[in-house]
Formats: sequence, C-alpha cells, structure tokens
Amino acid sequence: MVIVMKPNASEDSIQHVIHSVQDCGLIAHLSRGKDVTLIGVVGDKHLFMEKNPQLMDGVERVIQVSESYKLANKKFHPDPSIIDVDGVKIGGDHFVILAGPCAVENEPLMYETADVVKKGGAQILRGGAYKPRTSPYSFQGLEEDGLKYLAKAKEKTGLRTISEVTSISAIHAAKGVIDIIQIGARNMQNFELLKAAGRSGIPVLLKRGMAATIDEWLNAAEYIMNEGNPNVILCERGIRTFEPSTRNTLDLSAVCVVKEKSHLPIIVDPSHATGVRSYVAPLAKAAVAAGADGLMIEVHPNPAIALSDGPQSLDPPAFLTLCEELKPLIHLMGRKM
Amino acid sequence: MVIVMKPNASEDSIQHVIHSVQDCGLIAHLSRGKDVTLIGVVGDKHLFMEKNPQLMDGVERVIQVSESYKLANKKFHPDPSIIDVDGVKIGGDHFVILAGPCAVENEPLMYETADVVKKGGAQILRGGAYKPRTSPYSFQGLEEDGLKYLAKAKEKTGLRTISEVTSISAIHAAKGVIDIIQIGARNMQNFELLKAAGRSGIPVLLKRGMAATIDEWLNAAEYIMNEGNPNVILCERGIRTFEPSTRNTLDLSAVCVVKEKSHLPIIVDPSHATGVRSYVAPLAKAAVAAGADGLMIEVHPNPAIALSDGPQSLDPPAFLTLCEELKPLIHLMGRKM
Amino acid sequence: MVIVMKPNASEDSIQHVIHSVQDCGLIAHLSRGKDVTLIGVVGDKHLFMEKNPQLMDGVERVIQVSESYKLANKKFHPDPSIIDVDGVKIGGDHFVILAGPCAVENEPLMYETADVVKKGGAQILRGGAYKPRTSPYSFQGLEEDGLKYLAKAKEKTGLRTISEVTSISAIHAAKGVIDIIQIGARNMQNFELLKAAGRSGIPVLLKRGMAATIDEWLNAAEYIMNEGNPNVILCERGIRTFEPSTRNTLDLSAVCVVKEKSHLPIIVDPSHATGVRSYVAPLAKAAVAAGADGLMIEVHPNPAIALSDGPQSLDPPAFLTLCEELKPLIHLMGRKM
Amino acid sequence: MVIVMKPNASEDSIQHVIHSVQDCGLIAHLSRGKDVTLIGVVGDKHLFMEKNPQLMDGVERVIQVSESYKLANKKFHPDPSIIDVDGVKIGGDHFVILAGPCAVENEPLMYETADVVKKGGAQILRGGAYKPRTSPYSFQGLEEDGLKYLAKAKEKTGLRTISEVTSISAIHAAKGVIDIIQIGARNMQNFELLKAAGRSGIPVLLKRGMAATIDEWLNAAEYIMNEGNPNVILCERGIRTFEPSTRNTLDLSAVCVVKEKSHLPIIVDPSHATGVRSYVAPLAKAAVAAGADGLMIEVHPNPAIALSDGPQSLDPPAFLTLCEELKPLIHLMGRKM
Repeated sequence: MVIVMKPNASEDSIQHVIHSVQDCGLIAHLSRGKDVTLIGVVGDKHLFMEKNPQLMDGVERVIQVSESYKLANKKFHPDPSIIDVDGVKIGGDHFVILAGPCAVENEPLMYETADVVKKGGAQILRGGAYKPRTSPYSFQGLEEDGLKYLAKAKEKTGLRTISEVTSISAIHAAKGVIDIIQIGARNMQNFELLKAAGRSGIPVLLKRGMAATIDEWLNAAEYIMNEGNPNVILCERGIRTFEPSTRNTLDLSAVCVVKEKSHLPIIVDPSHATGVRSYVAPLAKAAVAAGADGLMIEVHPNPAIALSDGPQSLDPPAFLTLCEELKPLIHLMGRKM
Repeated sequence: MVIVMKPNASEDSIQHVIHSVQDCGLIAHLSRGKDVTLIGVVGDKHLFMEKNPQLMDGVERVIQVSESYKLANKKFHPDPSIIDVDGVKIGGDHFVILAGPCAVENEPLMYETADVVKKGGAQILRGGAYKPRTSPYSFQGLEEDGLKYLAKAKEKTGLRTISEVTSISAIHAAKGVIDIIQIGARNMQNFELLKAAGRSGIPVLLKRGMAATIDEWLNAAEYIMNEGNPNVILCERGIRTFEPSTRNTLDLSAVCVVKEKSHLPIIVDPSHATGVRSYVAPLAKAAVAAGADGLMIEVHPNPAIALSDGPQSLDPPAFLTLCEELKPLIHLMGRKM
Repeated sequence: MVIVMKPNASEDSIQHVIHSVQDCGLIAHLSRGKDVTLIGVVGDKHLFMEKNPQLMDGVERVIQVSESYKLANKKFHPDPSIIDVDGVKIGGDHFVILAGPCAVENEPLMYETADVVKKGGAQILRGGAYKPRTSPYSFQGLEEDGLKYLAKAKEKTGLRTISEVTSISAIHAAKGVIDIIQIGARNMQNFELLKAAGRSGIPVLLKRGMAATIDEWLNAAEYIMNEGNPNVILCERGIRTFEPSTRNTLDLSAVCVVKEKSHLPIIVDPSHATGVRSYVAPLAKAAVAAGADGLMIEVHPNPAIALSDGPQSLDPPAFLTLCEELKPLIHLMGRKM
Repeated sequence: MVIVMKPNASEDSIQHVIHSVQDCGLIAHLSRGKDVTLIGVVGDKHLFMEKNPQLMDGVERVIQVSESYKLANKKFHPDPSIIDVDGVKIGGDHFVILAGPCAVENEPLMYETADVVKKGGAQILRGGAYKPRTSPYSFQGLEEDGLKYLAKAKEKTGLRTISEVTSISAIHAAKGVIDIIQIGARNMQNFELLKAAGRSGIPVLLKRGMAATIDEWLNAAEYIMNEGNPNVILCERGIRTFEPSTRNTLDLSAVCVVKEKSHLPIIVDPSHATGVRSYVAPLAKAAVAAGADGLMIEVHPNPAIALSDGPQSLDPPAFLTLCEELKPLIHLMGRKM
C-alpha cells in the first residue's frame, strides 16, 4: 500500500500516519519529494485499513498495490487449475465446448439438442431451468423439471450438464442432479448466492457481471472458494459499453488478463456477448485463438421458435459447421478436445 | 413494433411476415420504400414475439416502440405516486432525507447517529445490517442485531428506518422491524429477491444497478409491483463509466428521465455515487435542484473509525451544515420537508 | 512515482531499478514486504520515464502519483482564475450565462436571438459558424459570414460572443471578430488546434471530450496554456455511457473534481449533454447548485425550423422562464450575475 | 424512418405529421394501435428532417432505420473493397501486417526496425512522425524528418509505409512521400482533417475513436470518401470502457459488424488497444480468427529505450515468433499473405 500525502501536509500529519502504520505492527517507508511525499506500507494491512487512512490529516490518497483476492490469485498458485467435471477436464491444455439452448423448453427438445451437441463433439450440455429475465412478463423457465430433463439427457448421451441457479433453493435442487451450476452475470455480486454455491461443493461457472472489473470478478470467485469450493470456472460474456451494434462488447483481452492474474480456467460465451447469430462463429474462433479454455455456445433445433434468445442461437447445421471449423484451430493452439 | 426488412427481401418473405403478424390477431401496416421496407405492427405483441420475427427470412431488425413495464409506467398512471412510510410521505411535493452510517456497527453508535440525523431534520434513519462487500474478507454486517438497533433508534427518536436486504431470509427478518427495505445496486436484477420484496408488502427502495439502463431499472421495479407491492422508491446512486475521479458517475439526468417515464418517486445518493466526502454536499444540492424527491446521505459520528465507507461519510457538523444549506433550496424548488 | 516489483523479483532486478532511479539524479526509497516490494521515487521523473521502467526486469507496474499538468493545476495556483472577456468576468464569484442557437443560420435570426438572450440576462451570445457534424450530408455552417453576424449582434446588444472553431484557419478568422473561441468535444485532443488556440491569445472555452477523463481534459487545457494563453474556460457537456435515454450522461461531479484539481472556471452545457429540451431546465439548475461558474444554453426563436439541434433548443418563453428561475438560485449559491 | 406518436396524440397532430411528410414528396403509412400510433415514412428524408419532426405536436420520438452513410455502406456496394497500396493489396482474401515503432525516433533505428519487419513477412512499415500526446511535455515527434526516414526505409526494403497525420499541413508533407496516411483515434471526428485526407487521394487508415460507435466511424469514413477518395482502411484499436486492466477494451465484434455493414477492409491494432506487451500476441491471433483483414503491431529494436509506448512494443524476437505463429492461422482462415 502507498499513502500519498498532500503537498502541504504538515510534519505532524506525516508522523501521525507513520505512527498509525507502526501501531498496527507494519513497517512504513517514507519518501519525501518537493511536491509529493509518499509512505510505503508493507505487511498485512487488514487492521490498518480499519483506521480509514484516507481520512487522516494530510492524506491525499491511498493506493492499494496488492490484490484483495488470495485463493484465486496466480501469485499464490502459479499452476493452472484443472477442474474435473465428472471426468471431463476444464483448464490446462484441455479444451471444452458447452452447448445447448438458452432455456430448457420441454423434454423432447432437450434430447434432440443433446444429440446435436454430442455430434458436434461438445462435452457439456447447457440449458436454463431458472431464467432471469429483464421483464417479469417474459418466460421464466421450467425450474426443477428443467433440471430433470438435463439429467435424463446426460443418461442418454453421457454429456455432462450445466444450468444456471438464481437462488439458494435452486442450488439445493441442482445438487446431485446436474454437474455444474452457473452463476449468471446479474448475480455475480449476489454474495449470498456465491457463498451458498461455495458451500455446495458443486463446480461453479461464474459469469462476469455486465459492468464488473476483472478484479471484482476474481473477488466474486474468492467468495465461492473461501467457502471451501476450489472448482470455479470463469466465463467472459461481454461487458456493457456505449456501442449499440452488439448486445454487449465481448472483452477478449479479459482472457489474457485472467490468465496472468489467476490460475482458474476461463471460457467465453460469444452468443450472449453479441446477441447476433452471425457473429457467434467468428468470435468463437477468436476466443480460441486468444487462449480461452472453452466456449459456451447457444444451439437450438429450431431457433425460430425458441422461447428465449432465439436470435443468437445457432441451428444444428450451423453448430456442426462451427465445430468442424474449430477443430483445426483448437489443435493449432496446442489444445486437445 | 416496427419490422425493418432487408433491402433485398423477397416479396414472399414480406408476405410471410405480414401473415405471421395477422395469424396472431394483429394488424400489419406495410410501408414500401426504394431502399427500405417497413412493417408496422400494432396490438399485443406477446404471441408474435414468440415466433422470433428477427429470424424470419428477409428481416433486418425489429424495433420495439413501447416499454415492457406497465405498472411503473407513467402512461398508465399519470399522477406521481406518494409512498407512505409509517406516516412519512415520499413523492409529490414532499422532500425526504434518509441519513445514517453505511453499516450498523454497534448499538451506542446507532443512537448517537440517530440524534444527529434527527437534529438535521431528516425523517429516515439508514444503517446497513447486511453488507454486500466486494471482498469476502471485509466486514459483512451485524445482521439481525443491526435491524434491532435500528428499531430501537426509531423508538427513541421517532425516525423511520431503512436497511438493505441481501437475501430472502433478511426480508423475513426485516418484516415488522424496519420501515423500508433497500435492494442494493448489485441485486437490482436479483429477480428472486425482487419478487420476495414484492410479496413482503414492505416499502422498497430500489437502487439502480451500476450498469443498468433506466428501462431495466423500471423493469426491476415492475417485478416488485407485479407481486402486489406498489410502494417502490427509486434511488439513483451513480453508474459505472470510464472516469476514475469518482467511484461512480452520478447520473442526475436520470431524475428527469424517471420523472418523465414513471410515477414512482426518485431519490439520490451522492455519498455512494462519488465515494468522496467533499463532493457530497454540492451534489446533494444539485440533486435537489434537478427535482429529486429526496436524498440519501451517509453520516457517521466519527468517519475515521467507520467500518465501511468512512471516506464518503459526513461527520455530524458537516451533515448539520448541509441540512441548513439544503433547506432554502428545497423551499425554492417548491418542496416541503 | 511508485514502482511495484513482482513477488518473485530478484535482488538484482531490485538493485537495477534503484540504480536506474539514482542515475537520473532521483532518490529511491525501498519498502520490502512479504508479498510485495515497493520503490518510491521522488523528484522530476522526466528522464527516468524515458527508460521505460515498466519494462525493467522484475517490475510489475508503475504508478504515477502526481498529475502531468502544471499550469492548470490548483496545487501551484490555489486561487481561482477569473477570465476577463472584454469586461465580462468568468470565475470566482461571478456567474455567467452563454446562450444562443446551435448554428448561426442567417442574419435576422441572430439578431432576434440576441435580443432574447439579452432580455434573459445572459452576458454572452453563442452561435456556431463552423459546425462539426457526424454526417457529411448535414448542414455545415455559414463559416466567416456566421462570425460576422455574431460581431454585428455584439454591436447592437453589447453581448460578448463565442463560436466554435474547427481549424487553424477558423481561429485566424475569429481573431478580433469574436470574444471567445470554443474547442468542441470532438477536437479536445486535436493538439494542433489546441496549440494554435494557445498562440492566438483569445479566451478559449474547452469542451470535455465525449470519452475524456478529467485528467486528459486538464492536460488538453495545459496544451493551450503552455503556449502562453492562460484564459481557458472548461465546459462539461456530458460523457458517453451505456444509457440511451439521453444523448450523453451529464457528469456534474466533474464540477466538483475540477474545482478541487484546477483553478480554471468550469461551466456546464445541459443542452448538448441531454439532447432533450425538457431536461435542460432541471439540469441547468442542478449545475448551478453543484457550483458551476456558468451555463451554456441553446436558444432558438423557433426550434421547429432550427437547422441543427432543434430538439434540444429552448424557445424564447422557455428560456426567459428558466432565467427567472435561475436568478434566486444563483443568488442562494453566493454568486453574482 | 418511423415516427412514434404519443399515446394521447390528437387526430389533428397525427394529420399534421402526415401532411408534413407528404409536403416533402414522401409517402406516410399510418399504423394505429391502442397505446401507440406509428407513421412509417419512406423516400429521401433529407428535406423532412429539416422540419424537426421530433418537435411536432404529439410526436414521441423519431426512429431512423437507414444508415446516413452511403459510400461506405455495403448495401450499395456488396463486394469487399480491395485497396491497392503501391501494389500491396488490402481487403478481400489478402492479409496484411503493418508493423514498426510507435514513433520514428531516429534514422538508424528506422532502418533496423524495417529489416525486422520485412524479415517477419510484414508488407507495410509504420512509424509516427507527428505524435499526438496527452501531455504537452511528452515527445512530439520528428515531423518531416520522420517521414523522410520512412521513405528511405522503403527504398532500402521495398516495404510500403504508413504514418499518422495530425494536421492539414502534415497531409501535404506526406503526399508523395509515404503510402498511407493514418488518422488517429483522437482525430476521428476532426472533420477538416478528414476532408483534407479525402482531397489528398492518398490511401487513409482511419482509426476508430475511443468512444465512437461503429456508425459514427463509418460516417467519418464517409467524409473521406465523399471528397472522392475511396481508399479507406478501417482500424479497430480499442474503445474506452470502465475496465482498468487494459488501456482500452479491444472490440473484436467490431470486425464482424463492419464486415456486415461496410465493404471497407478492417484491420486490428492489439498494441494500442491493450497497452500491454504480453497481450499483443494472443489478441493478434484472435483478430485473425475473427476475420480481420490485417494487423498493426508495434515493434521496436529495443523497447526499453523507446520514446513512446515502449511497454506495448514487441522486441524483434517476439515479433518474429508472432509472425511465425500467425502464418498457419492466416492460412487456416483462408487468407493469403
């Protein structure tokens, strides 16, 4: 931590800051300049922060130099984490595709999609059972029945399964039924849900919030990991910007940043990021080339009648073509699938 | 709704869209131009939207022209709503100040703050019992004890009370104990929480999400109202932008937009918006001048030892000075307090 | 400046950084911690920065703690600057209103508007002679004729005048003809134009760029001042965000930040910020209450036929009403007009 | 164009809008609904827009459905444009790499870099002679000497050349000396510069503004093309968002959007977008996979002593490695280089 003193800070105020640092058992290093005086602080700043150093006399600002997340931090865990999802590996040199409809709409559709997803070579079947929707008048999901259909699709195809949870009771319903629970962008800082996901022990796919910095995202992962669940997979799905041509702006540099700051695997969802079907394939390829550990792709047997997010869903032929085109690229990037 | 056809859309595809509209019992109006062909659709578009018109052959895009929220919409409720909080009115020509510490830290501090808040002329005491924090290692709140201290402070001072809820169980704990429950920015699209807040019947202060458009915010209010609870107060608290000088960018035009689109009262929180103590007073005044129905201000008897958000909290003298300065301004704007 | 070393930085790399600092005649202060090592650097960092310390072995990042602008910086010029525009003062306890049409459209319209502007009590007449427009097919302005009409309107009414310049030749044309030249948001980092404006010696109103941080804005002012022209007036006109209800998001906290960081006066343009006529009056009042030194308001005798930005222009009665409503507010804020 | 009437618009106001449309020789199609009434307008709206329909009685809003750019629009020029730069083709199935230092610093450095750039297989040498810098105290470039060194490097190596112009006089200096002039992000809406670039006839690389929508960017291209210069190459270089880990957020979906809306080639600059050397290679690959027509990469023989943007520059070995890794990817995407 660095404390920047105001140009006119008095000697007394400088000494007061230094003593406050020392009172917490920390070491303060003073750098005096003509216009600016700095106090470097090293050690565990927990106690000192409770004194609100920003408010001490003469202090201009306080700059944090270490990250507040520990368990998700690559500094303390340099090797990439590999998450085991009932035998399917995510992270390291593995590459994984999660695919399926935005919402689980009915039983036969789920099985039909599962066959396509498997044929394409994807390992994990997605489908929303609990749907967070902007308007209360939109379709809200089949809830527990949706989870059940996913589980049956797993029985039939061997695909692993993932579905979003929007409440603690949904986590209980998902336990033992599906393989990965997803925390959506809107709930990325729903800390009660994060803690419950952590306690559940189920692998968690944590989507980035629409306006979350990467640091906040890794802190959200920390909430899950801090409850004893190290199985967190990050998912970049676009951030909110001023550009109206796409629903969100896919931030592929997040893949690079996460790879540098954390050991957790990161996958990319080009379907939700863009909201436009024709942009899904080029951005899926871009994500592979950027070094992502996987992709989440929306597929629907008949997007024209999808109850949710049809416009961004691939139909089976488009999905199978994309999978074929991805294979040499995944190989070129040194990944195996 | 307007459907914009592609320049090269075939006659067949145009007719197909028109028939699909008519099949849903709606009326389609065709406007043919040299470069662009438009199809206007009027009536209840619910059924038609399920056909995913964006995906029909020849369709370039679909433009929604009516808002998806109804209960929060001024078009169907032109008079401003006035929310009654145990006798204190919010909305119309009333002006209200909500003030108190970020977090309820302990019992005596709460009473000390309540006295200051009352002395300033504020009507409602705030204090966080359940604290959503970016890092799991920060102070998380006193929970039910916090609510209890608020209730006791009400007994002593007559001030109404407000506290944030972050889970359904917190709503149950708050019921009958405090007067307003707050849904924070991070939970603005935690739809399960919104629905539970709606079912509780307790007045709800709904903060705008950090990256929420005003339309999404009013749709979030709709979730609460749709459960039978019309007592929603909106609170602008800054949005996330690229500017780093303030924690968020306070969007005072939101006050104007909400006044035009909705009948719900809107208050402004300059403390959380800026995160900087010296900016609170000027922006509080700006909010009054912009036409806000109230202010939420952080006050702490001793910000230097506050467990949360000390740097943006006013100390008692600063708060009392601000209250004195606000009074003639509130009066000038034609409001009573 | 603070240099943060990587956790695993070698002793050699730490010594290399320290020696590089010392080689530039600066002093380095070392703070060693368990996880992080900091090197504080004080003195003139100009030479040292050319060594690209970010790239030295073992360096994690370099944090600048002092601002790069000097002439615009309040630290070195604590008293507010008061700009004299042919006898009209901007800054200090003066309050100024600049008003007029977006574009100078023709001669009679300019005089008609000038009468209204004067009647309202504004001191400065605005009118665009060179119009930067998003599309090349929109009206581009009357150029030198526009400046001439402004000058004549000054003769008739005594109002001072302001107009935007978009090229160095426009600055030459403006010299001696109008009182203030405006650099628009799109040209805020057109450094050639800034330097020419600086050399001209004419008072400059510098609008904030749509995506400019306040630091970049003050650095742009520095370009003008560094050429020997201290007469810079800043103008907040909204920044670009994700919110679509207003053309831009008016950032009134910028008024507070500028007042803290700089001695230059700052005025607010609610017309361009919102693009919506009904939001102009409430946000004009908010700007006064936030502590702005003035307002720029679009007025047009007949907005329905305005060639540019009609939808955000006030008609004469609305402008005169606003001026009346502003007066007690300006007075209440301790300003004179 | 679609005009949305207010719910309570009178019959008179509806008829007034329709007549105004018809008076301009256009056709109006009326769609009446219970809550909303729409008027579709087809034909050349130029004249009608001058009547400011947003301000007509009863009008809620006016929605533009056609783009204001024509020459840059794919609708009127469906085949991709291929720009010929002294024999090097940009666009279509060609792939191009532009590389070199941020700034031309001195003569030998330019030749040394040119050799590396050529060795890597790049076709075009970049180097800034006129440097737009945030602070007036940073290195501003060698100006005409810089252009001269580029021209000599072309003589020696056969590489084509590109350099940024920041003023009309710089365009004159560049004419006949270098092959492509670059308009930087800060000048994307410096319309005087765009028009001069158009009149020059030199191929123009137009960078996207930091906060420019894709529509505004294509309108800026239109300014150049409207002066008779069809040789415009677009360059995505990151947009400004709230995320602080990278200097800007690289928007690779812009590649997809531009490919859909325009026939102009688009290249990607991962160096400026991120500002971080280690992110350049993965994002360069991502750009190729997303379908970009080329890359602009910063290379410097010794980044540690670069006068500008050293931290994001690749050194020769890193550049040559990246080029080798890109080749199979470019081939896989069906491009030739």
